Amino acid sequence: MKVIELKMTVTDSNDRDAQALRRELTERGIFLINLMSAPGSGKTTLLSRTITDLAGKVKIGVMEADIASDVDARRISELGAESIQVHTDGMCHMDAGMTRTGLENMENSGDRIVFLENVGNLICPAEFDTGAHKNVMILSVPEGDDKPLKYPLMFSKSDVLIITKSDAAPYFDFDFEAVESRVRKLNPSILIFPVSAKTGDGMEAWEDYILSEWEKRHA
Amino acid sequence: MKVIELKMTVTDSNDRDAQALRRELTERGIFLINLMSAPGSGKTTLLSRTITDLAGKVKIGVMEADIASDVDARRISELGAESIQVHTDGMCHMDAGMTRTGLENMENSGDRIVFLENVGNLICPAEFDTGAHKNVMILSVPEGDDKPLKYPLMFSKSDVLIITKSDAAPYFDFDFEAVESRVRKLNPSILIFPVSAKTGDGMEAWEDYILSEWEKRHA
Repeated sequence: MKVIELKMTVTDSNDRDAQALRRELTERGIFLINLMSAPGSGKTTLLSRTITDLAGKVKIGVMEADIASDVDARRISELGAESIQVHTDGMCHMDAGMTRTGLENMENSGDRIVFLENVGNLICPAEFDTGAHKNVMILSVPEGDDKPLKYPLMFSKSDVLIITKSDAAPYFDFDFEAVESRVRKLNPSILIFPVSAKTGDGMEAWEDYILSEWEKRHA
Repeated sequence: MKVIELKMTVTDSNDRDAQALRRELTERGIFLINLMSAPGSGKTTLLSRTITDLAGKVKIGVMEADIASDVDARRISELGAESIQVHTDGMCHMDAGMTRTGLENMENSGDRIVFLENVGNLICPAEFDTGAHKNVMILSVPEGDDKPLKYPLMFSKSDVLIITKSDAAPYFDFDFEAVESRVRKLNPSILIFPVSAKTGDGMEAWEDYILSEWEKRHA
């Protein structure tokens, strides 16, 4: 499993780079999904379960972005998926140039879904287009239902919201309806999937969504 | 309750500003505590309980820093503590100049403990000295025990680690001993308090620590 040290991209326009990267990936048959969340929301656990459930249906690669450590990439590579770890040189986000460098370091290059697990942070990653086809945000039940009020940009920029650790709802004071109404005020077309990667509840709807988006691109 | 819009401080040296601010606060009898954590770790809940428990023992003010919203400051002001909300203009941290501006907007200026509830983020706030006398980091049980591996700077810069939502430990796979050993490798002298603001477990040890630090400064 590779570990790549990145530097911030020096470029005029991240938005332009991101659009160019997205086009190239589409041509190469890569469907890039950018997963964003706070630290500890269960991104890697969700991803592990998703990879296991989708095994045999589609090829999957994973790029783990972190400030330090390779604990997440090691967890993913144990599942047999191709996995690389990128280190962001202290930066709290991935940009399009950094994502491109990471992708260039992956061995298998075409016809697959690649998940980019962005740096655990609800602020900076929302400000940089990575070139992904879909932005997916993860909010875990223990974080609380007030997060759309406090981090509005992240909720506005995401195509999908996954609410993880739904099995923990009985132990926390989390109002699913309040979250949905707060999120829809910011982003009326967002898709919302409540899931528990532990019990499997809700995972099928999320995985069906990924497969249908994948098939749209490979009809 | 005031809401202050901040801009990033333009200055050569945040470290120098922070040292100057810390000296001034000491002279004015203000004990400034910087609370840092990921979003949803339970900072505001911990703070609410701490304020309630310390009522009558010491005067307390609270500065809530966020990208947007004033939900936290409203929760605190309902407890009767002086509370202001500062907005960081999209930035994911507070620096010393921003902290100074916030403090200048608080009505009651001397002989008290002021809690700065920093922006919810495990990366950027660790990089900027705010001028606080103590840096306190909060990690909640649902976030997982691997966080010291992934965000080492935050654990290295903190004087105190509070592990919140300890009542949720039976529902999560959280190894307190593993966290302690990982944190002490980065920061041998850090104090660690496991607490549950919900049940009250462990709150007394944390509050005794604050009062003893307060008394040291007002002997």
